[in-house]
Amino acid sequence: MIENRADRDATRSLLHEVSPAALGGEPPAHVIGITGPPGAGKSLLLSALVAEWRGRGQTVAVLAVDPSSKRSGGSLLGDRARIEHDPRDDGILIRSTAAGGRLGGLAAATREAAEALAPAFDMVVVETVGVGQSETDVEDVCDTVAVVVQPASGDVLQFLKAGIMEVPDLLVVTKADLGDVATRSRRDLGQALKAVGSSEVPVLAVSSVPPPSGIEELADALAVRRDGSDVPARRTRARRGAALREFTAEHGERALRELGGRRAAERLLERQDAAASVTELLEALEAGQ
Amino acid sequence: MIENRADRDATRSLLHEVSPAALGGEPPAHVIGITGPPGAGKSLLLSALVAEWRGRGQTVAVLAVDPSSKRSGGSLLGDRARIEHDPRDDGILIRSTAAGGRLGGLAAATREAAEALAPAFDMVVVETVGVGQSETDVEDVCDTVAVVVQPASGDVLQFLKAGIMEVPDLLVVTKADLGDVATRSRRDLGQALKAVGSSEVPVLAVSSVPPPSGIEELADALAVRRDGSDVPARRTRARRGAALREFTAEHGERALRELGGRRAAERLLERQDAAASVTELLEALEAGQ
Repeated sequence: MIENRADRDATRSLLHEVSPAALGGEPPAHVIGITGPPGAGKSLLLSALVAEWRGRGQTVAVLAVDPSSKRSGGSLLGDRARIEHDPRDDGILIRSTAAGGRLGGLAAATREAAEALAPAFDMVVVETVGVGQSETDVEDVCDTVAVVVQPASGDVLQFLKAGIMEVPDLLVVTKADLGDVATRSRRDLGQALKAVGSSEVPVLAVSSVPPPSGIEELADALAVRRDGSDVPARRTRARRGAALREFTAEHGERALRELGGRRAAERLLERQDAAASVTELLEALEAGQ
Repeated sequence: MIENRADRDATRSLLHEVSPAALGGEPPAHVIGITGPPGAGKSLLLSALVAEWRGRGQTVAVLAVDPSSKRSGGSLLGDRARIEHDPRDDGILIRSTAAGGRLGGLAAATREAAEALAPAFDMVVVETVGVGQSETDVEDVCDTVAVVVQPASGDVLQFLKAGIMEVPDLLVVTKADLGDVATRSRRDLGQALKAVGSSEVPVLAVSSVPPPSGIEELADALAVRRDGSDVPARRTRARRGAALREFTAEHGERALRELGGRRAAERLLERQDAAASVTELLEALEAGQ
């Protein structure tokens, strides 16, 4: 129903049913964004991470967001490396969705799907391809954003240093089995983070090929983030960010000006309840028009 | 006036004055997009290219679009490497502009500025930082898009192979003075282009440090593109693309649905004159609402 985007009223009622207000509190799921350039090894990493979580008895939903290329005229779903898992295991849900549209890398549908899945799974993963702008959207949907890079990923390093790429919560260097080059990449990324004043961001090295290494440490680092005291405040901020972004995409910059501009819209959102869902915030913005 | 975005009516009249209809034909300028990751050497390359064009007696305007990072909270203008030129030479105009907003990497203001400068200069360059989505916007503004990469730019290669990055009209590998690694990059990029069925795209190697090499060849390759027979059709397509993007950003996805959806809006644009300016096309879309 969310993906079809046909019956918006029905979607809104569904989302009202899973709002923090209706649930009597924040859903327990950890919503994790996994992003990075193609070829970085995200699918292999996720296969290993999903197995690790299932071994710990945690249920997992993965939303794999597929970027569409305008020129190639369609979705790359067919080309996507699949996340390996036992299809009979109903503690796992894996779903590929098209990003759709050109405004913003992450469609509203992905945010809504993550919101609908959060009360039902321990982990909700939003996987996207990209470096740069798209992370901003992922940040509005996820509690934690991990950027996955392969060793010697010079462009990612440059994006980070130039302040064009948002600083993630966690950096993961894959292919640690490559030895020296992985160690050097990990050190270079650590230095780039220091240069932008974010030396507290963990840089982890993992190898997803059997025998995997670093996966347990990654799962532990993610669990630490989930228990961090800044998660509630961040969720509030993220929901407000998502509401503003979706309001503008739907109603246009003109509607934002009618509200008195971006700052006025942000102030309107800040006056809402901290636990208000994106749907409720959207309704508040629409009522303010 | 265009940058301030204060008096939209005055901007629209200005743009009507420089429309192909008012000018009695397409402006002669070659509008060139130069894009690539930070650190690829775009500024140095442009300094050498501007000197080459001036040596050929051609006038040049450069619009350097500055991406803004949300978290760093502002523009990177201060950090930008400057394009070297003689400040007394009035055959050169160089202007840094902030991209602004989150919807689309390239603001409407950049498109409007390029349009206003096109009747007054032989070359109009739009320089942006990025890999991926942002090129789509550059393509809607420019006759020719060149992507600049440094040698061993693995992520760009991956983006290209995965079909996430639009195929540019020209690929430029900088730092050709690095020898083997530049040669290997050039070959790898050529193979990636072949893999996506675009083996006709030229891959040039340049060195911008004195003595520069490959700059003349690049200027020649750009001149060949300008004289290409597909430029008029591409300009029409680009103006229609820009109008649709700006209409949606301004009025929202809702307004697009009111027009009957994206395809219906595209058909409405296809019925307009091939020489219609973006402003005229925007007015046609607004009238169709």
